Amino acid sequence: MWQLHQFPLCPFSRKVRLLLGEKGVGYELVRESPWVRRDEFLHLNPAGQTPVMVDADQTVLIDSQAIAEYFEETVEKSATINGTALQRAEIRRLTTWFDTQFYQDVTGPLLQERAIKRISQSAPPDGRVLRESMKAAVGHLDYTDYLLDHRNWMAGATLSLADLAAAAQISVVDYLGGIDWKGHEQTARWYRGLKSRPSFRPLLSERMEVIGPAPHYANVDF
Amino acid sequence: MWQLHQFPLCPFSRKVRLLLGEKGVGYELVRESPWVRRDEFLHLNPAGQTPVMVDADQTVLIDSQAIAEYFEETVEKSATINGTALQRAEIRRLTTWFDTQFYQDVTGPLLQERAIKRISQSAPPDGRVLRESMKAAVGHLDYTDYLLDHRNWMAGATLSLADLAAAAQISVVDYLGGIDWKGHEQTARWYRGLKSRPSFRPLLSERMEVIGPAPHYANVDF
Repeated sequence: MWQLHQFPLCPFSRKVRLLLGEKGVGYELVRESPWVRRDEFLHLNPAGQTPVMVDADQTVLIDSQAIAEYFEETVEKSATINGTALQRAEIRRLTTWFDTQFYQDVTGPLLQERAIKRISQSAPPDGRVLRESMKAAVGHLDYTDYLLDHRNWMAGATLSLADLAAAAQISVVDYLGGIDWKGHEQTARWYRGLKSRPSFRPLLSERMEVIGPAPHYANVDF
Repeated sequence: MWQLHQFPLCPFSRKVRLLLGEKGVGYELVRESPWVRRDEFLHLNPAGQTPVMVDADQTVLIDSQAIAEYFEETVEKSATINGTALQRAEIRRLTTWFDTQFYQDVTGPLLQERAIKRISQSAPPDGRVLRESMKAAVGHLDYTDYLLDHRNWMAGATLSLADLAAAAQISVVDYLGGIDWKGHEQTARWYRGLKSRPSFRPLLSERMEVIGPAPHYANVDF
């Protein structure tokens, strides 16, 4: 069975977990705290980032997008990079958007200030960074509202990897209390739909030591 | 014909140009300065980044990796994401490594300090940032030396997208005088091989206003 090296609030591990859930691929979790920069983990992945997947025969997969493409290519069930070449380009564009822009503007700073600083007891959270990331979250949800005004799902007519990447980022930010759902009805409706899926359930019961989730985090009807 | 929105020292546009060159896909260049954040360009790509490709029928492709995957899927010639699913995962892992780690540690800071600050006349370069990025370059070339000790090309036995992504980043850093080739014979030999390819030639004659290239930049035997 695959082992997935991750920590509960890693958005990239969550993207992979949602994909594996949709595809019905079994895995077990191995806890890793990448900010500790453990030698054994750096040896496994020089980039020092989760997720990393390791198979029983020591096959190693690194980087959430390379992992996603791997399972797209090897497991036919529930294709999430689907359609024409152009549709697939749009799925990949938006997946990158959530993995990089959304992460850089919102999830990354919030995770650093609210969770990692607290776990590693390195410094108190920076109020300015927190305010800026929550302001950026509003801008990003305006964009997802706009996308969902024109489409059933983020990248088109069907559920795709872009939805899983988006939900992975949003779920971490929502856990950390960084999302004000007021005024974002389109995205909230989409997110309620995703939260109801069996692939999402394991993430909703996930807890990170030291910091508990926002009160509505696990509610499907929030 | 495709139009490629880019600027001469954009490493991600260079990655796409190398790929299009290998595949024999024609395109014309459209100059864009993403740091100006022009409204029309932001309308085309909300992420505000180059490269963006636009076809005669207004088909738009955004993000260097989505663009690369698109041409891999639609143009059979010179496959650069090739082999078993596992080999393809390794190609994608290393492509991401150069696109994100190498860019973040080396190309990004150097480009900002040596070129963009100068073009936009915003501030003098920060010596500390320059020194750190050049130190990081040494660490990264140690890693590529290590890879090329074990393989003919970055990700395995044949040329792949990982080589193009690596060469794109390295060529920008080399233009900006940020690479000390001494002690990196493995990577230098690999880079000489890539520089000799027809796909590379257009990049070697490329110049950016205000800042000229390092003296050895365009030499195939540097």
